[in-house]
Amino acid sequence: MSTTVRAWGAPAAGKPLEPITVQRRDLRADDVQIDIAYCGICHSDVSTVTGEWGDRTWPLAPGHEIVGTVSAVGAEVTQFRIGDLVGVGCMVDSCGECEYCLAGEEQFCARRVLTYGQTMPDGEYTQGGYAQQIVVREAFTVHVPETLPPENAAPILCAGITTYSPLRHWGVGEGSRVAVVGLGGLGHMGVQIAAALGAEVTVLSHSPSKKADALRFGATDYVATAEAGALDAVRGRFDFVLNTVAAPLDFGAYMATLRVDGVMCNVALPQEPFQAPVRLFTNHRRSFVGSLIGGIAETQEVLDFCAENQIGAQVEVIDADGINEAYDRMMKSDVKYRFAIDASTF
Amino acid sequence: MSTTVRAWGAPAAGKPLEPITVQRRDLRADDVQIDIAYCGICHSDVSTVTGEWGDRTWPLAPGHEIVGTVSAVGAEVTQFRIGDLVGVGCMVDSCGECEYCLAGEEQFCARRVLTYGQTMPDGEYTQGGYAQQIVVREAFTVHVPETLPPENAAPILCAGITTYSPLRHWGVGEGSRVAVVGLGGLGHMGVQIAAALGAEVTVLSHSPSKKADALRFGATDYVATAEAGALDAVRGRFDFVLNTVAAPLDFGAYMATLRVDGVMCNVALPQEPFQAPVRLFTNHRRSFVGSLIGGIAETQEVLDFCAENQIGAQVEVIDADGINEAYDRMMKSDVKYRFAIDASTF
Repeated sequence: MSTTVRAWGAPAAGKPLEPITVQRRDLRADDVQIDIAYCGICHSDVSTVTGEWGDRTWPLAPGHEIVGTVSAVGAEVTQFRIGDLVGVGCMVDSCGECEYCLAGEEQFCARRVLTYGQTMPDGEYTQGGYAQQIVVREAFTVHVPETLPPENAAPILCAGITTYSPLRHWGVGEGSRVAVVGLGGLGHMGVQIAAALGAEVTVLSHSPSKKADALRFGATDYVATAEAGALDAVRGRFDFVLNTVAAPLDFGAYMATLRVDGVMCNVALPQEPFQAPVRLFTNHRRSFVGSLIGGIAETQEVLDFCAENQIGAQVEVIDADGINEAYDRMMKSDVKYRFAIDASTF
Repeated sequence: MSTTVRAWGAPAAGKPLEPITVQRRDLRADDVQIDIAYCGICHSDVSTVTGEWGDRTWPLAPGHEIVGTVSAVGAEVTQFRIGDLVGVGCMVDSCGECEYCLAGEEQFCARRVLTYGQTMPDGEYTQGGYAQQIVVREAFTVHVPETLPPENAAPILCAGITTYSPLRHWGVGEGSRVAVVGLGGLGHMGVQIAAALGAEVTVLSHSPSKKADALRFGATDYVATAEAGALDAVRGRFDFVLNTVAAPLDFGAYMATLRVDGVMCNVALPQEPFQAPVRLFTNHRRSFVGSLIGGIAETQEVLDFCAENQIGAQVEVIDADGINEAYDRMMKSDVKYRFAIDASTF
């Protein structure tokens, strides 16, 4: 038993997105039914529908930056009521029993199920948030504070948690010197969050064109990295470098901007391997690390944090029939700073 | 004013070592004069005298694993008396005022002076421990517990502290799953120290030939990495991987042996850069880090720790005229597990 819902998805790998329908399961006792209001567009959506990240079952509706209103709840749901503003991020299921689930870090559970393009234990194939409605377990649903405009809140479900989690995990706070590499969907959230955590934030961006925006988001310094030797001026300066850029990078030059005990964290997923001379690590006890979204409890935490600090994504709201153009523009970094799809147009 | 002391050193880059003399400064108020008993041979000694690490002033006596007896003290020395068994490691001076010096991590001080081949603020050129005697500031001298045989203690001053410091810094303790890559001078100290800290230790070594020794040093598991796919059996297993091997390595394969939040630490200094796919970091929040010897207080700590746990280096004691042969053998990994020079033969 299931409900047919209008959506947009790719009919096959590498094909433009088009109107499709997806099935949503009938409500189980622990399920929440959500009428979607907005769904953000993430680079992962593009990497998935192009087939770059491997084959999938088609058609597939992507989307994991979902905000909407609860329209029905299962009999055992306790945390959500009809009418609540809620969100769904990158995951919709996990085992609930392993050490990572018990620690609230479901992203590391070997049986976690992504919001689209994966298969649940019972065989259900997940379809994402480019749709009018979604049915999700209560445990993977979060509250969206009413003080956040829903279209600005949607990207917090991926871009927000993906930058918040490592900043918190590696102890960024009052007085930390943080660099954010790249000012895109992830970067502009990272800058705002790091600044709200009390850090002194420098944006390292290719061209000088985004400087005014960077300062508006809370950065105090800006380095246009395309200028030869630009990074020399910030050598040995940062406690934490958050790399949001998937394009090839001279990693060694960025590692050298870290102080003793400094940490460079990749949240982008470049095709090229990380590479840097070992002495850049040993001589200053530096670290290179990676981070993957964040857990469900932490996703609630970042939403609350953003509400308290009046932080949201800067979005361009588009209709469903603008998705393909938005993908093209996003791949050219031509978006300030995230697209959000108006779900009433699916 | 200075004293001429017999030593062994390289007359020029890449030349065999030969008998030389070095000058030791007259005792200052905060100096300790040490009659050297043994000096260990470290890979750094070879990398320096071959010129691999850059040019130096010649002749140069290497050696920074020094154990000996105090034979004179300056007027203001309070912590050492004539007759004390003491040690000197990789550093003999630092600024004493920067945040790193104040934190007891002199190895990160921008003005720290290495035990050989560097120039002090007053112009004195440092000559190392392949000599009969050395004069060192009290602040860079440590006590060697009398329960440690001095020849077995000498390598603790470099190989010991270099492995102890990262194991402690990254929280290795009871129940940690640790891998030590390479069973040489550093590796055999790392295995003993990690086991004494309560870790479950696996040795990852090229051939199966060192298995019995590894188990004797306290390892519970051994993987001969030259066998194809050998590392697959320990995928996702370790909390901490200590890499003591400077030879080229498939870093990605080693990163994959880490659990979520696992840390791989290089204490070796390979010529080739570190390289590994970024997804190995993001998907499991793994870290690649480096570590450089350790501070003076921590060097005292590791000596005391080794005494308490009856840990020492396994050494082959040689005479000074065996140094060049020892260098050749060490570069072929033909030593179990460290050479120590009998300083009475200089």
